[in-house]
Amino acid sequence: MQQHIPGLQRWIEYCNNGAAVAGDFLPLNVSSATVGYLSPSFADRLLNAEFNDVFQKCPVSGGVAVHTSLVSQQQRTAAIATVLQQLNAEGGIQGWRGELYPAASSFHEQPAFLIERAAAPYFGIKAYGVHVNGYVCLPDGSKELWVARRSRSKPTWPGKLDHIVAGGLPHGLSCAENVSKECAEEAGIPAELASQAVPVGAVSYTSLQAAGLKRDVLLCYDLQLPANFVPQPQDGEVEEFFRLPVPQVVELMATSSDFKENCCLVIIDWLVRHSYLTPDMPGYLALVAGLRSGDCS
Amino acid sequence: MQQHIPGLQRWIEYCNNGAAVAGDFLPLNVSSATVGYLSPSFADRLLNAEFNDVFQKCPVSGGVAVHTSLVSQQQRTAAIATVLQQLNAEGGIQGWRGELYPAASSFHEQPAFLIERAAAPYFGIKAYGVHVNGYVCLPDGSKELWVARRSRSKPTWPGKLDHIVAGGLPHGLSCAENVSKECAEEAGIPAELASQAVPVGAVSYTSLQAAGLKRDVLLCYDLQLPANFVPQPQDGEVEEFFRLPVPQVVELMATSSDFKENCCLVIIDWLVRHSYLTPDMPGYLALVAGLRSGDCS
Repeated sequence: MQQHIPGLQRWIEYCNNGAAVAGDFLPLNVSSATVGYLSPSFADRLLNAEFNDVFQKCPVSGGVAVHTSLVSQQQRTAAIATVLQQLNAEGGIQGWRGELYPAASSFHEQPAFLIERAAAPYFGIKAYGVHVNGYVCLPDGSKELWVARRSRSKPTWPGKLDHIVAGGLPHGLSCAENVSKECAEEAGIPAELASQAVPVGAVSYTSLQAAGLKRDVLLCYDLQLPANFVPQPQDGEVEEFFRLPVPQVVELMATSSDFKENCCLVIIDWLVRHSYLTPDMPGYLALVAGLRSGDCS
Repeated sequence: MQQHIPGLQRWIEYCNNGAAVAGDFLPLNVSSATVGYLSPSFADRLLNAEFNDVFQKCPVSGGVAVHTSLVSQQQRTAAIATVLQQLNAEGGIQGWRGELYPAASSFHEQPAFLIERAAAPYFGIKAYGVHVNGYVCLPDGSKELWVARRSRSKPTWPGKLDHIVAGGLPHGLSCAENVSKECAEEAGIPAELASQAVPVGAVSYTSLQAAGLKRDVLLCYDLQLPANFVPQPQDGEVEEFFRLPVPQVVELMATSSDFKENCCLVIIDWLVRHSYLTPDMPGYLALVAGLRSGDCS
């Protein structure tokens, strides 16, 4: 394992390439709460006169505020949706999903508004997901991880290696409900088996993307599967599932770009918790600390 | 569990009461590396003329530097030891242990010097420890944690509840060696059983103490013990060992001050990894993120 630590650390740095430039972004406020961060050019676009009943300059934060005349979640959601339609028509928002994400300063706050998932990074909204590591314990004590290959026709990360189950957390679904739903949809894992997926922590990062600042918190789950269980692609998201011994997963992550980048962080967290990485290995603490580099709230 | 989250969060805040004032402390440098932080009054004491062959004002950091004439670890260690003898004679260092801690900017760096353990917080040296959660899985699926009550005659935290095994990491011992040594010395855990303790992560915090800034990184270990094993106090550090069901441990931590404070953080980390706490509980992410509030490097 030792020799692969720098190769693993690389993915923590990759996923946190937004941290150094986060200060260049402008806060997006709803009253006194900061719910997002905007690039200066996107902030300018929102402050254009055509949207001046939806957004205004925020005198407190110096950034942008949702207009104070919009007082309820419903009002803000509806007004922002009209702005998004205009931006989308201009080609300003890529990868429309038709799925609503909550915008809030932290996970258990009442959302200030709901927003199309594809728009979340443009607005620097914190986004949450559930990521499940499915694994098998073999009789000799070794473990194998289930790996999914994403469909080559998916618009995002086609053909990349992925968790057995993972998914963004849309508004109105609990983490436990989402795990169970995604287990069924993506991998054909029956409810009784899916209910054995257990929460074990979280990783967080701040990525700079063309769209803006992607501020993600991934809620990590472990699912120990029986050796004779084989997941089945259901909804076309996954091309194939296969099992790999842990050392092979580590080598792949450390020496290739085969895995979807943020999955590497969730697998590193698993490697730490399952004692494949130990504090006597140089670089251990940087990995451990780096897993929660983003705003984990 | 849910109702106890604020009571658990309290200990994370307690252990991190130094974060807000860390900026008032002055860096202690060895060449360009910062290895500690000094209160202004302690910095003044070190910069007193009588120690001017050991410490000097650091032109780069604005703090204190170990004198550039001291070029080897041995030279720095010896010179600082003479200063400590003087400070100790003045009553300026409490709780002398006769144990050497490494002073380095991070865990796997070559230490710039070694320093008496009791002096570490005065110099704001980062200190490392190993903390082992010993637990038993019962046939009904529930778990119990082994708890130690510290001897009432110990100078530090007498009578407080503690982990089954924990200890500071002195210079020259690996984490694995220290776990094994402390398992034998503190709890009479035989080597074969102790070797089943597995590393699972780290917690870190910054505490303000009368001595100065205590910057600790605790390396967390899990040790699942057979139901018929009973630890035995060996070296007088522990008065008694007893087993408690997990909900009772949580209630004690959340509603009393019975546990040694930093042990609460390691137990919270265990509760997260063992799924007693879940992301659907408000306050979960603050707990998870708060566990690595200190400089975890």
